[in-house]
Amino acid sequence: MGEIVFVGLGLHDDTGISLRGLEEVKTADNVFLELYTNLLPGFSLDRLKQVSKKKINVVSRRDLEDENGKVVLDAGRVGKAVLLVPGDPLIATTHVALRIEAEKRKIKTRVIHGASIFSAVIGLSGLHSYKFGKSVTIPFPDETPSDTPYTVIVQNKSLGLHTLCLLDIKTEQQRYLTIQMSLNALLQTARHKKKKELTVNTLTVGIARAGSNDPTVKAGLLKDVLEYDFGLPPYSLIFPGKLHFTEAEALVVLAGAPEKLRMETE
Amino acid sequence: MGEIVFVGLGLHDDTGISLRGLEEVKTADNVFLELYTNLLPGFSLDRLKQVSKKKINVVSRRDLEDENGKVVLDAGRVGKAVLLVPGDPLIATTHVALRIEAEKRKIKTRVIHGASIFSAVIGLSGLHSYKFGKSVTIPFPDETPSDTPYTVIVQNKSLGLHTLCLLDIKTEQQRYLTIQMSLNALLQTARHKKKKELTVNTLTVGIARAGSNDPTVKAGLLKDVLEYDFGLPPYSLIFPGKLHFTEAEALVVLAGAPEKLRMETE
Repeated sequence: MGEIVFVGLGLHDDTGISLRGLEEVKTADNVFLELYTNLLPGFSLDRLKQVSKKKINVVSRRDLEDENGKVVLDAGRVGKAVLLVPGDPLIATTHVALRIEAEKRKIKTRVIHGASIFSAVIGLSGLHSYKFGKSVTIPFPDETPSDTPYTVIVQNKSLGLHTLCLLDIKTEQQRYLTIQMSLNALLQTARHKKKKELTVNTLTVGIARAGSNDPTVKAGLLKDVLEYDFGLPPYSLIFPGKLHFTEAEALVVLAGAPEKLRMETE
Repeated sequence: MGEIVFVGLGLHDDTGISLRGLEEVKTADNVFLELYTNLLPGFSLDRLKQVSKKKINVVSRRDLEDENGKVVLDAGRVGKAVLLVPGDPLIATTHVALRIEAEKRKIKTRVIHGASIFSAVIGLSGLHSYKFGKSVTIPFPDETPSDTPYTVIVQNKSLGLHTLCLLDIKTEQQRYLTIQMSLNALLQTARHKKKKELTVNTLTVGIARAGSNDPTVKAGLLKDVLEYDFGLPPYSLIFPGKLHFTEAEALVVLAGAPEKLRMETE
């Protein structure tokens, strides 16, 4: 009988897939690929076709969300269907929904994990992973202005915890929220609330192109990160909470934070 | 000049490495491998040697921690050194320390990410990743009893957030803290504190062998998860906070939680 295998593409390009993931592609009856839930800037469909020697069907948000993944479910009923997904495959809720739908229809599912932006960005920052609180996505301020990111950052900070912020992307329109726009939106919220928990002097870490060969990681005061040139997307932000001295060391050595940060640790 | 490339092995065995990671191994002057920070139950050094056609030097905790990674730093000064690491390579603090040391000595570093237990377990549970609060490792209760896991779970719950608990492992001694031992230790802490925030009726998710082809994910009341046979390690636990109805659906369909959980959502 059939099955659906969710395979993570990992980060940045078509070489982020694991050996096990590639093997699943090679032995599939039907291969599907979505590239809209996350940006893989260096991805080449031709190279992946070449290395896997397979026909690969690109599926859209419409196929997976509006039509509830019908094309993948149909293929998974009669044979082995592989769905290739940027990052780690079950982090986007739309793929969890598809997995639930498949299991309800008695179609077996398996998952081949891939590198995720969550652990990649945390690792690149050098901050301790267990000190991250709730994470948050910063939406485009012109489309869906929201106080939530500000509230999450302030709540985590009050608990001494770090906050990972993913910045919204609209892959179909090739629109990527920038670090500058995100920081301006957060400052705007702070002004609106007449609060001082987040200011131009708040310690901020900006990350661009995590998972590529030339990621940029820059730590400093918010006003300095705001003016820093991060180059091409995708982007993330971290607002550190209380720092252990090894974390301050990491931000100074690996992310160019000011030396005086070493004085401000636990 | 030289460089050190940290390459993630991903999860479970020697096929979790990415195509890019394998390419780095193939083109390295020296390849090192550590297998003590995490358990890869199906890992075969022989298979990895065969597929990479390289000599691979296994390094111990002693090499990396007591001797501060001297063997890797020495190799990275004169050529391209690759350090293979279970999971995503900069999640363990010991590798961040090595990276800092290298950069201080003007040895360039790069990172090839791998699948991490963090996003894998979160994905397998079907719970929303942005609703996880601070995570915590549960230590062996007979060696380092600690109230911290209990405190973290209760704090996250009070904020409506989920808690991911990693269970301690001693790879050198092949000792793996079990789900049963962990839950008993948490109940012990609750009794000790005379608190009722965590009881035999608390919703609990146990996960075994994330990243393998046959992971076990079981959700239910703590007392039921306590008696469930999870099979071989490694293990993780999740204590859910407030559930969205799609999260309850995921726990029921994907993890065998009782149907009545659907009634207890936001």
